[in-house]
Amino acid sequence: MATLGLVEYASASAEVRAIYDDIMATRKTDWINNFWKAIANDPATLRRTWESIKEVMAPGALDPLTKELIYLAVSTTNGCDYCITSHTAGARKAGMSDAMLAELQAVVGMANETNRLVNGYQVEIDERLKRAALGKR
Amino acid sequence: MATLGLVEYASASAEVRAIYDDIMATRKTDWINNFWKAIANDPATLRRTWESIKEVMAPGALDPLTKELIYLAVSTTNGCDYCITSHTAGARKAGMSDAMLAELQAVVGMANETNRLVNGYQVEIDERLKRAALGKR
Amino acid sequence: MATLGLVEYASASAEVRAIYDDIMATRKTDWINNFWKAIANDPATLRRTWESIKEVMAPGALDPLTKELIYLAVSTTNGCDYCITSHTAGARKAGMSDAMLAELQAVVGMANETNRLVNGYQVEIDERLKRAALGKR
Amino acid sequence: MATLGLVEYASASAEVRAIYDDIMATRKTDWINNFWKAIANDPATLRRTWESIKEVMAPGALDPLTKELIYLAVSTTNGCDYCITSHTAGARKAGMSDAMLAELQAVVGMANETNRLVNGYQVEIDERLKRAALGKR
Amino acid sequence: MATLGLVEYASASAEVRAIYDDIMATRKTDWINNFWKAIANDPATLRRTWESIKEVMAPGALDPLTKELIYLAVSTTNGCDYCITSHTAGARKAGMSDAMLAELQAVVGMANETNRLVNGYQVEIDERLKRAALGKR
Amino acid sequence: MATLGLVEYASASAEVRAIYDDIMATRKTDWINNFWKAIANDPATLRRTWESIKEVMAPGALDPLTKELIYLAVSTTNGCDYCITSHTAGARKAGMSDAMLAELQAVVGMANETNRLVNGYQVEIDERLKRAALGKR
Repeated sequence: MATLGLVEYASASAEVRAIYDDIMATRKTDWINNFWKAIANDPATLRRTWESIKEVMAPGALDPLTKELIYLAVSTTNGCDYCITSHTAGARKAGMSDAMLAELQAVVGMANETNRLVNGYQVEIDERLKRAALGKR
Repeated sequence: MATLGLVEYASASAEVRAIYDDIMATRKTDWINNFWKAIANDPATLRRTWESIKEVMAPGALDPLTKELIYLAVSTTNGCDYCITSHTAGARKAGMSDAMLAELQAVVGMANETNRLVNGYQVEIDERLKRAALGKR
Repeated sequence: MATLGLVEYASASAEVRAIYDDIMATRKTDWINNFWKAIANDPATLRRTWESIKEVMAPGALDPLTKELIYLAVSTTNGCDYCITSHTAGARKAGMSDAMLAELQAVVGMANETNRLVNGYQVEIDERLKRAALGKR
Repeated sequence: MATLGLVEYASASAEVRAIYDDIMATRKTDWINNFWKAIANDPATLRRTWESIKEVMAPGALDPLTKELIYLAVSTTNGCDYCITSHTAGARKAGMSDAMLAELQAVVGMANETNRLVNGYQVEIDERLKRAALGKR
Repeated sequence: MATLGLVEYASASAEVRAIYDDIMATRKTDWINNFWKAIANDPATLRRTWESIKEVMAPGALDPLTKELIYLAVSTTNGCDYCITSHTAGARKAGMSDAMLAELQAVVGMANETNRLVNGYQVEIDERLKRAALGKR
Repeated sequence: MATLGLVEYASASAEVRAIYDDIMATRKTDWINNFWKAIANDPATLRRTWESIKEVMAPGALDPLTKELIYLAVSTTNGCDYCITSHTAGARKAGMSDAMLAELQAVVGMANETNRLVNGYQVEIDERLKRAALGKR
């Protein structure tokens, strides 16, 4: 059970309601999921987090689906069940198919595996890779 | 320094050379980075890891750039410097611009933040999100 | 269900009972939570863990509330639900208000975010910061 | 080396300079550390991250030192060297003594240990702890 | 609930059934646990993961019990409940006693603690340890 | 550089020296590695950590080599370079061959991969596995 409880729309302050309204309008949906209701106990965190998410997840150099896939990859790595569920749902809404989900999870799995092989073998970074990471030849 | 040393092409077994050749041919490059040279000390791990990476990173429902972005997102979350460098390089090669890199990191940052807000507030999963994650209305 | 079961006071050995008694006396409480009952299956681990916790969480340069907040921050980062619950409870007992909990979680969230921005941008440590960390000007 | 390079004050845009000025004024310091210079390549991330940090780290229900200690505890858990260095420095500036640092690290160590004991023994959450976490008796 | 559902033997394709048969034959068991049924939605991932696990967990320089203990140690560190349960079961089948489980968890706990003490105190690697890790005197 | 510096034997207090002597005697070695010298700034942490390590790593139901392998697996998963180096060295001293190291890392890699596949597919724990984990049929 949410530690500080959930702030429902009906009993929310005007400040919180305005943010809820913006969440629903931006996401073209008619409900608020528990994450926002939980952090709404701290309106400053609700506002800051929503404004950040709204900015970060907006279309830009990366499209919204790619951003949802990245969010899901991180949440899967961290083992956050709520986040895996909500961003699986979010990615589906943005167009993720079952096949894309399966490929995403395969990549996440391999990345977590090879990250540890690198650690275990204590591999030094190639100078050539460093230059390539900087965008230099 | 790599714990078991690096297996250079010149001194590699025929089995390892064949894999190195396939890596270079598949990636259209003329060199092998340290990761493969390190795990080549265990040819079974080299073969298994390369075959898995080759299969997982091939174009499918997700394009190669998206897969590199996901790989980079996971490596960034785990703090694996070698992997961050090699997959920043890999993503650039697949078409990632500086703007895309910056947006990727912004999403990775927010995901790591909200994953913990969910933990800290002990948010319960909405039934509606569960259904949406399953692809049901 | 706890893998090795829970060792209840009534059926505990004299060695385990003595530790349970010390836990209750030290914490000024009349019950033992499941964590201790679970690890009591290995009396050496019970004793060592309790003695360590007792020493580490005692008032010192940091007061007990601050120590509970730190414990909760780590548990939240690691996503350990039992630990989040028990140390939210422990921190409340030590004086944490709802407002303090919310601010704690906001800091934990930001730290997890910026930790990854540092990784993703591969930021080098400033010499000036190194000196300051060492307590030098 | 920072992947996208560092944005120095002299060559920064007016937007970035204004944020740098605010960072220095808020922190009562005359320099900008590499973290900000690295993320300044993406002015939106610079602005959002600074505004969030400024808000989250300001004195509130928790004092600035406690917030720095929490930040350091998270960074230590995640193994982010830059962050450990910068927040060790930050905590010292806010009043952390060597003794406080040592006690902090002792708590962080124990929390990371017991988090895993809970996992390994698969300890179920006590109903009484749940109520206490919610602030109920 | 498994995001893509579970592929039961009765309704599985010939390709998936062949892998299920090999899992049961290799493990000398007459059932398939949910992990395989879940990833069977992506037959390529099922095949690749099973072949990798089969190769990696086979007796070699390390015996099967030691490999199960290592698997359990990693899963405990990552807090993956399914994995902790399945590899506690797997290790028991391979000969792990309750005493061995308790000692394993004690080591996992200490490793997680000292990993963070190293981070927090920013300990530099001794040259002598580096040589010893390389197998040199 | 170690944040609080390193406490060398020559300048150590009698309390610290006694612990250093016990470390060297127990490990049959004539030197102290940096980890102990770093935490010796807090003699209580030095004593507690050494006594715990001494107890936990002593031969019991698991032999010392197996314990070192488990320690190395956790350190690799967490990406603690100092710990990977020191426990690769420690495991070699206890008898780990290059082939064992390679197999260990292969298992660690697979465990980190499948831990995330379980997360990503949200696999529910089989009742049969739960019973088996408890040691019941």
